[in-house]
Order: sequence, then C-alpha cells, then structure tokens
Amino acid sequence: MRLAELSERSGVSTATIKYYLREGLLPPGHQVNATTAEYDEEHLRRLRLVRAMIQVGRIPVATVREVLGHVDDDSLGRTIRLGAALWALPRLPEPDAEDEHVTAARTEADDLLTALGWTNARLLTSISPAYRSLVVAVAALRRLGYDWGAELLAPYAELMHRAAVLDLDFVESRESEAERVETAVLGAILISPMLQALHRLAQEEESARRYGFE
Amino acid sequence: MRLAELSERSGVSTATIKYYLREGLLPPGHQVNATTAEYDEEHLRRLRLVRAMIQVGRIPVATVREVLGHVDDDSLGRTIRLGAALWALPRLPEPDAEDEHVTAARTEADDLLTALGWTNARLLTSISPAYRSLVVAVAALRRLGYDWGAELLAPYAELMHRAAVLDLDFVESRESEAERVETAVLGAILISPMLQALHRLAQEEESARRYGFE
Repeated sequence: MRLAELSERSGVSTATIKYYLREGLLPPGHQVNATTAEYDEEHLRRLRLVRAMIQVGRIPVATVREVLGHVDDDSLGRTIRLGAALWALPRLPEPDAEDEHVTAARTEADDLLTALGWTNARLLTSISPAYRSLVVAVAALRRLGYDWGAELLAPYAELMHRAAVLDLDFVESRESEAERVETAVLGAILISPMLQALHRLAQEEESARRYGFE
Repeated sequence: MRLAELSERSGVSTATIKYYLREGLLPPGHQVNATTAEYDEEHLRRLRLVRAMIQVGRIPVATVREVLGHVDDDSLGRTIRLGAALWALPRLPEPDAEDEHVTAARTEADDLLTALGWTNARLLTSISPAYRSLVVAVAALRRLGYDWGAELLAPYAELMHRAAVLDLDFVESRESEAERVETAVLGAILISPMLQALHRLAQEEESARRYGFE
C-alpha cells in the first residue's frame, strides 16, 4: 500500500508517519521509484505499536526506539527478548539502599518470592524493574508505619500468576514471532489500566453484594 | 501524646502536621491549655492516611479534604461510603460520547458486566469512575485498530473479583468502622502499584518457566 492508504488504515496522519520514519521508529517502505514507497501489513502493525507506546503509554521517542531495538533483536532468547522490551519501559529510580525501610522491604520481597516458589524471578531480582517496583511499594507501606505483613501479598501474587498465564497464552496465540514480541510490549502498556479498572469495578460489585446500597 | 511525639511516631515534621491541621486534614487535638494540645491514636492513624494520599498517591490537598469528608460521613451506607471515597480520587475526564470507539467500548463493557453477572456494578455505570476507566481503555484499543474482543477480558475480570474479595476481607478484619473506611482508601492507593509489580514479576517467572533463559 502507499503512504496515503497506510495513513487511512492506521488513522495516523501522513506527517506523523513521515516523522516516525525519520526517527527510525518505522522501517522504510519498499522504494518503487524515486518518489514512491510501498508499505505492507508489517508496517501497519508496527505503526499501531508505536502509536500505542507514544499515545497510550506516553513513552518518549528515544525509549520507543530502544524498546523496538530489543523487539527486533532475534539473536536474543524469547524470555530475554520479552523481558528486555519491558525493561526498557519507563521505570522507577533505584531505591536508596541505605534506607532501613528499603532493606526490610527487600528481605520481605525475597521471602515472598521464595515462599511462592518463583525461583526464576528470584534469579532476576538484581536487574528486574518489576522487583524494584515491588520493593519500592512495600518500603512505602513500611515508611508510612503500616506493618501489614508481606504474607498478605501471597494470595494476590497467586492471582497475578494466573493473569500472567493468560497473558502468555494470548501472546503464544499470535502467528509470527515478531507479532508475539510486539504483543507482549502492547500488553504491558494496555493491560495494566484495564486490570486496574476491572479491579475497582469488582470492588464496587463485591461491596454492593456484601453491604447493599443503603 | 504531644505534637512532638506525634511527629516522632509518624515521621512527619511538626511544621507539616501544623499545616495539615490548618488545612483541616487532621482534626484538632484536645486542648489541654492555651498552648498545648493532646493527640491520640486516631490522630496518628489519620496522619498516616493523609501522608499516604499526598506522598504516595500524589493527591492534591483539596481532593484529600474531599475524600476525608466522605470517609467521616457516617450517615452514608458502607458501600456508598467506601465508593464515595474512591470516587473522589483523581479520575479520567468523561470520554467523548460522540466518538464511535467510545460508543462501541461502552457496549462491550456493558456486555462484559452482564456476562460476568456483575449486576450491582451494572447499576453504577453512569457514575462509576472505574467503569469510565474501562471504557476509555477499551476505546483506546479499538482506536489503535486492535480487535481483540472484550470476551478476552472475562477471565481477567474473574481474577480481579477474587482480588476484590481479598481486599474486602482485609478491610473487614479492621477493628473500627473508621479504620475500615480508611483502609479501603489506603488500599486504593497502595494496592495498585503492588499488583502491577506482582503481575510483571509473574510474567517474568512464567516466561522463564516456558522458554528458559537462553
């Protein structure tokens, strides 16, 4: 398809598409002659992913380029490739290692992973931004003076593991490896807000079931 | 306890506590004489909640005051009181009702709630910010050109319902009604980042189990 059709099918203006091409977020089209290039379904798919990252994920262009670099690097194994794409997403700063609450939270997070039998996640703690986020969140709770134990988190973690199984089953249902890695990145951006909305809706539902509306 | 002890036990400076008192975020202490006031465990608990909303939730002072107004209004039933506190938290703008993707997303969200049997949540759709967030997220997916059906969301919704049961069981385990409502607000602020971190950790774990590390 020509640029005009790519624009129409994606809902992205031709000016924006040209900008993405210049920034290297979209691979160049197949040059038909000096002034015309052809684009295919892979361009359309990539364009949607870039759009999702920038518009919904509010990810800076430089980070989008970095994530796509991992997505396209098929020399990496799949776990690393899926993970590397997520690890390039915006992340929290490293928590202060001197802070007593951080040290305590790290121990609690480690104990939780051990109790859950998440031995693989346990191996990744030094580099995983998800582990870092968990430590930051638990440390925040401690700093505020709440002593709710990390053991409260175990049943939530089991639920999130079931969610991860659903995620990966869906990723695996995609046809090509490129599509699978792209879907993992998309999921990381689009699934969280939906899960949060569903969680709050479920709270409303459960609350009304228990206490009614009066 | 005196102001100095309240400050020490909460880790909040006396200047900040005085600011919260002036802004009406903390009820006044019990005046002992012209220059001295006494504070109790309820002040400490309320101070921690205010701290969580402002520091972790990054909620503006005016909104904190509004949420606390609902928390303290014991003329409301519990569902409404829990809900009203959450409804005062920062929320998305109303989605554009003229937008075809929004209309389609609304139908899908309604069908999902019906399929799930969430009849109470169904009654609240016109006022619930959680419902609005779901519509916005589904509409974003459609606008990007993804036609993944809302039926994919049903198993995630079931998991989130189990999470909501855990949430409310924990809320109910608190001793006083004031504490229960406060815990619900805290949970809304602190649980989401933890669930998101656990979800990503679970993805790493599951991915490594399926594909190894090479």
